[in-house]
Amino acid sequence: MTIYKERIKELQHLLKKNKLDAVVINRTLEVGFLTGFYLDGCVLLVSKTNIWGFIPQMLFEHFKTSAPFVEAVAANDIKGAAIAEIKKNKFKIKKTAFQPETETYVDGMFWKKHGLIEKAGLTAFLRLTKKGAELKAVRKACHIASKAFDIIKPKIKAGRTEISVARELEHIMQLMGATGPSFDTIVAFGPNSALPHHETSTRVLKKNEAVLIDYGCVYDFYRSDRTRTFFYGKADAEFKKVHAIVAASHRKGIKALKSGIKASTIDKICRNEIMDKGYGQYFIHGTGHGVGLEIHEEPRVNAKSKYVLKEGMVLTVEPGIYLNGKFGVRIEDTLLVKKNGCEILTK
Amino acid sequence: MTIYKERIKELQHLLKKNKLDAVVINRTLEVGFLTGFYLDGCVLLVSKTNIWGFIPQMLFEHFKTSAPFVEAVAANDIKGAAIAEIKKNKFKIKKTAFQPETETYVDGMFWKKHGLIEKAGLTAFLRLTKKGAELKAVRKACHIASKAFDIIKPKIKAGRTEISVARELEHIMQLMGATGPSFDTIVAFGPNSALPHHETSTRVLKKNEAVLIDYGCVYDFYRSDRTRTFFYGKADAEFKKVHAIVAASHRKGIKALKSGIKASTIDKICRNEIMDKGYGQYFIHGTGHGVGLEIHEEPRVNAKSKYVLKEGMVLTVEPGIYLNGKFGVRIEDTLLVKKNGCEILTK
Repeated sequence: MTIYKERIKELQHLLKKNKLDAVVINRTLEVGFLTGFYLDGCVLLVSKTNIWGFIPQMLFEHFKTSAPFVEAVAANDIKGAAIAEIKKNKFKIKKTAFQPETETYVDGMFWKKHGLIEKAGLTAFLRLTKKGAELKAVRKACHIASKAFDIIKPKIKAGRTEISVARELEHIMQLMGATGPSFDTIVAFGPNSALPHHETSTRVLKKNEAVLIDYGCVYDFYRSDRTRTFFYGKADAEFKKVHAIVAASHRKGIKALKSGIKASTIDKICRNEIMDKGYGQYFIHGTGHGVGLEIHEEPRVNAKSKYVLKEGMVLTVEPGIYLNGKFGVRIEDTLLVKKNGCEILTK
Repeated sequence: MTIYKERIKELQHLLKKNKLDAVVINRTLEVGFLTGFYLDGCVLLVSKTNIWGFIPQMLFEHFKTSAPFVEAVAANDIKGAAIAEIKKNKFKIKKTAFQPETETYVDGMFWKKHGLIEKAGLTAFLRLTKKGAELKAVRKACHIASKAFDIIKPKIKAGRTEISVARELEHIMQLMGATGPSFDTIVAFGPNSALPHHETSTRVLKKNEAVLIDYGCVYDFYRSDRTRTFFYGKADAEFKKVHAIVAASHRKGIKALKSGIKASTIDKICRNEIMDKGYGQYFIHGTGHGVGLEIHEEPRVNAKSKYVLKEGMVLTVEPGIYLNGKFGVRIEDTLLVKKNGCEILTK
């Protein structure tokens, strides 16, 4: 419980810093981040000194038990109740904010109509670096993913379908404590591996084909992300060459990763390695992304990213080369940025 | 493929009917509904005579193969490319729409800034009644859910945790062809069953406790939803009484369900049955909701619902009584509305 109180305090500190009276929190992810209660349909109002929760009747008892440190109000019209509370407390409405990046169009227009102002990035800032319980959860999600791969790999044989491998891998992760996959598991055999977002299918594995597995799991709401590509059978020269290039790119990116370096520099290091070997045009996506409550979150690791990496950020490095009609290779780990380097969480 | 061309044609018919030149489609769900391509980050532009897809480079080859009937354009700035195409085709910008209910705040504001107008409910209308392939998928998702319950039920014994039952049930559904659970499976033992959205936990089942399971699966992107509540051990008089009341409410709602009846009338019939027995205050949610590509979609079945039910709608009837600290009972089926009645898909 302490962890939520701490996060609320940090958010209240940001309110003061930004000269705001209050902020409404209206996305399940952020409500959960601040209270531990991850069910849809609740709105929080956080002022510099207080926190209210506007909760559908159906969830009210449940919420009160889960988050007793929030002043809970049962309401039918959740957003309307938040506005009423703002008025009742005589917050300067021009100093009460909503976060544009977390709102639907309909909800954002509602807040705006009632005079609330846009202020981006408050909770995003708090979520950007991981510590304590959240780091523990990410670590565990990563650990489960790594171990599960070691179990499934020897069971991948000619005749199995992509989907049977995906389902078994997910099942293994669940038996190890995961609540589910962190995104739709990608298992791609042969030419399917050349599609970065291949939809796992009933395609059967044949002898002498590439196998790409991109997967992760959720543990206590936090996620892991990892990709391995290997050859089933005897790899030909082209696969070996491409795999070695991607592995070198991946290795160099990780080696450079530390607090203080720009995310765009990591992208450049990984991309140069592949460009220098003549495969630049086949590396058709960014180098990585943050991982946490969402599978893709800040900081993005690509050429346009403005982030300077900081201790406690958790992100992926995942260079790839995709040869349409032939095969693709991607190697990805989830990493924790540290002061003088990084730790591979999905080792 | 024919099914997608038909849907696009129906959408184009709606454009004409609403005197619109074109509409942008920007949510993965609707892009998938119109093209069969369900990966994030693509935008469609549908005019009265054409359909364009603006696709991130990473997904471009993949998209072209999946949806060859769409004029695909690879782009870095997806939404910007859509705007450019609108201008190039000299569509009257005031007659090009976006659907407010499908947009994030940031995206909606982008369309608005470029002069597009709000027009709600175009794709929602097409998704409201199910036919052909989508009905087949819903049927299968429902069938898997029902069968899987029959397999898990005899395996639920004292000493098992809620989460172990949930994971095994999900695994059974996956072995039967489901791609995953249609939402976080709820398994609630004893007093936990009194929380309508209980988070499945490591709570262990004891002799003589209520067991509530609310679950479903995804098959070919369509979902099922079903709840069963039973007593493990020898039910006491109160559980028997409450279960009988909920069962009667559920039965009467289903009996009344047919094309032409108001959704609010179904809610009233179910609610009256529970109110008449003195438990009205413990039925703390709406009677049901539509099910399809989303687990909760239109038509809502509650007192405020404006919908008149039509043949082909798929929805749930799920009355419940929740006695805090003791137990809860909910009984839910996914149903297909027919001309003179309905079909229980999760029988």
